[in-house]
Amino acid sequence: MKLKIKNFNWLAGKPVVILNEKTAKKMNIFVDDRIAIMGDKKFYAVVDIFSKLVKENEIGLSSELGKIIKKKNKSFIEVGTSEMSNASFLIKKKLNGTKLNGKELEYLVAEIVNNNLTAAEIAFFTSAQKLNGMTMKETINLTRAMVKTGAKLKFEGKYIADKHCIGGIAGNRTTPISVAICAAIGLTIPKTSSRAITSASGTADVIETISSVEIPLAKIKSTVNKVGACLAWGGSLGLAPSDDKIIQVERLLNLDVEPQLLASIMSKKISAGSKYILIDVPYGRGAKIATKKRAESLGKKFEAIGRAFKVKLKVVYTNGSQPVGNGYGPILEMLDVIKVLENNGPEDLKEKSLFLATELTKLCGIKNARKKCEEALSSGKAYDKFKEIINSQNGKKNFNEKIDALKLAKYKQIIRAPKTGKITIISNKGINNLCRVLGTPETISAGAYMHKHIGKVKKGEKLLTLYSESKTKLRAGVKFYKEFKPIEIK
Amino acid sequence: MKLKIKNFNWLAGKPVVILNEKTAKKMNIFVDDRIAIMGDKKFYAVVDIFSKLVKENEIGLSSELGKIIKKKNKSFIEVGTSEMSNASFLIKKKLNGTKLNGKELEYLVAEIVNNNLTAAEIAFFTSAQKLNGMTMKETINLTRAMVKTGAKLKFEGKYIADKHCIGGIAGNRTTPISVAICAAIGLTIPKTSSRAITSASGTADVIETISSVEIPLAKIKSTVNKVGACLAWGGSLGLAPSDDKIIQVERLLNLDVEPQLLASIMSKKISAGSKYILIDVPYGRGAKIATKKRAESLGKKFEAIGRAFKVKLKVVYTNGSQPVGNGYGPILEMLDVIKVLENNGPEDLKEKSLFLATELTKLCGIKNARKKCEEALSSGKAYDKFKEIINSQNGKKNFNEKIDALKLAKYKQIIRAPKTGKITIISNKGINNLCRVLGTPETISAGAYMHKHIGKVKKGEKLLTLYSESKTKLRAGVKFYKEFKPIEIK
Repeated sequence: MKLKIKNFNWLAGKPVVILNEKTAKKMNIFVDDRIAIMGDKKFYAVVDIFSKLVKENEIGLSSELGKIIKKKNKSFIEVGTSEMSNASFLIKKKLNGTKLNGKELEYLVAEIVNNNLTAAEIAFFTSAQKLNGMTMKETINLTRAMVKTGAKLKFEGKYIADKHCIGGIAGNRTTPISVAICAAIGLTIPKTSSRAITSASGTADVIETISSVEIPLAKIKSTVNKVGACLAWGGSLGLAPSDDKIIQVERLLNLDVEPQLLASIMSKKISAGSKYILIDVPYGRGAKIATKKRAESLGKKFEAIGRAFKVKLKVVYTNGSQPVGNGYGPILEMLDVIKVLENNGPEDLKEKSLFLATELTKLCGIKNARKKCEEALSSGKAYDKFKEIINSQNGKKNFNEKIDALKLAKYKQIIRAPKTGKITIISNKGINNLCRVLGTPETISAGAYMHKHIGKVKKGEKLLTLYSESKTKLRAGVKFYKEFKPIEIK
Repeated sequence: MKLKIKNFNWLAGKPVVILNEKTAKKMNIFVDDRIAIMGDKKFYAVVDIFSKLVKENEIGLSSELGKIIKKKNKSFIEVGTSEMSNASFLIKKKLNGTKLNGKELEYLVAEIVNNNLTAAEIAFFTSAQKLNGMTMKETINLTRAMVKTGAKLKFEGKYIADKHCIGGIAGNRTTPISVAICAAIGLTIPKTSSRAITSASGTADVIETISSVEIPLAKIKSTVNKVGACLAWGGSLGLAPSDDKIIQVERLLNLDVEPQLLASIMSKKISAGSKYILIDVPYGRGAKIATKKRAESLGKKFEAIGRAFKVKLKVVYTNGSQPVGNGYGPILEMLDVIKVLENNGPEDLKEKSLFLATELTKLCGIKNARKKCEEALSSGKAYDKFKEIINSQNGKKNFNEKIDALKLAKYKQIIRAPKTGKITIISNKGINNLCRVLGTPETISAGAYMHKHIGKVKKGEKLLTLYSESKTKLRAGVKFYKEFKPIEIK
């Protein structure tokens, strides 16, 4: 069918055509269908129906599409339906149980990066990975494809290192502390982090309370070269960009798909140029992984990918049965971080950060790692390094102002122990969900402060203080706490 | 986050909100994400980003959403992210290998009907069905859910009957003929059909060459009550409407998912009130199903659903190794149908139509079925019945005019046998794709006419005549024929 072009100066984020309802009906196509546009070659696009914007027999082209098709308004173009792209064939192949080779995975990932697949097609691919599994070879090839289709960083230092936690633990804001310690003793750490998806707060959300985190690649390079580390948001850097698009689909069901998780994490680290990589796999009741056995099975796969890419990689298995640190929510977690750096913070957060920093330092082959890390922290060198990183990212020495400006939410409520006994369980998921009810991560001043970890408690002692900028949300938080009971006392 | 409402008078087909890019970035959400809108209760909607239409901190509501939220422009509403609906939980459950019970499937299907699921979520559900399978009990419950969430038809006659072919065979336009024969001998057949998805033409496309097929429910009832049958498009009737939405996602990969196929077909028949159902399962090389064994395995499942819904159901297994009839494409197939009804048409199409009509008649317990069906066809009673159906659907006696107006495409090209030998294979898929290259089903006058079926052929004899309204497409068709070689001569 021939349609009249209407170019839109509109960045849809992917090649999208807009059709009038009547045209769509005539062509027997629906929103999210794929069509082919016959220009000099065949272009694929996804259909949106918006009758206000285009007339019958017109086709609106998103900015992305207009640029590649290069035809004037009111010129005609041939459009075909029921089109399966080559990438769709590959997804169908995988869904039917056939393994994909390196070339096929590279093509598929490139098509994801170029936005030529619909969310539904990515969902099919994700399902196929989850239910048919991926061999180690496929996982390694997927990782390689994800690296190849994105930007890469390169640094000069001797020890380009990184750490990563697979997540699921509330609080657990070790990254800013470990990175500061490691950078203080000479490691180079181009650290990129994500924002929260289902938790109270991600590392990027926490850093953002005092620093810009959306830093262009050039600025990351200069920051890392100058101060030895950065604490940036990974989302806009274009490192393994297919990852973001796949995660967007997975999170519709909060799905963790193991081969994809492995490839996502490893492709980001390798793209960032890291040669020494420490992976933290917390396990235990209420963590993403329940048993040590399953944690180790995952760990072995990380090691296999590490070997394939010739990087030094170590997996540590840590206790994931309760939150780490006392504050949960962007500002509350930043306050914990600062306290630890001032040698005045929660012991569990301090100990875990020191442990991770030591392991990463050891991995680089540096001797007396524990002693060096302890010294960096206790002497204040790590804190100084942290200030340097933040000031460099902000482009001015405003660290103290930023810290002074941190203010918790104006409404708060204390939750006390209803009886004397022993706290046996603190659900990470429950605490994270509670914080989201209170408004995190959007409201950076909201969240929860935990006064007691697992152990003895007396009736009437403080368990939690809840913070919110809205009375309604505070009430909803209290209600959620009572219904969900994330803290169990026996 | 609180956003300012902007109501759009725009039917998106589902609850959609439009956000400005900046708002989306701030909320860390993307196109196709789900958000929750807190009105009197919680409403879910899918995100579209269209910065031209809404400002930062505004939220555009599609017409569907505006109607249920009922708030004025410029009033504020609270919006939350990272929301999983209850239906998403059920999909995740199925994806993780747990069986779903009747209530859960009903809830899930209702959510699909209400457009509360994204295409990606439906893709996850489809994948889970395909890869984890569905028990017979789940398939029956899925069918029941699909019936329950749609419109129902009810007719008075003694023999409410229907036939269905699982598809995949080019031509094979038996439905108009069998329906006319059966209605002529007293069966009641509320027949609804689909348009082509990947084939040259669907039954609805063929009927549409001489009759309107988008017929409202009330008109279907009156037509069937008056003349004993209809030949309508099933798409806009609201019978098992979840089906259309699931098929839309499946066709991204041209996926056939067995439990879904079973539930789709059976739910439509049961919703239409049929008590006697004949299912045609063609098998053979180049058909959807290759072997008799696999055809019978599918057939048994149809029978099990039939028993569960207390309908009389029979499965026939037919030869699917080559196209049926001579014409492929809407008008070409209609011409075949008319010729058979005039007792002057392709023998294979006539025989298959008679066979199906006879089987359906037998299923109703009517004696001397074959004789009665033959007599209805040879006497012209079936043809008269067909005219009645078409005239009733068109609302005026214009059958002859409509037939006279059928014209084949203006450009044609004959393809001749390159050597003497035996035609061993005629690929259904190849013929269907060839017709699509020539412009079907949108161009109703395009397609192919086959002069020879499987059997002997002499060099230079006509094999096919290709028809197209465009010289370019005709050339593309010839090129496609040469590359794909859908007819093999040995």
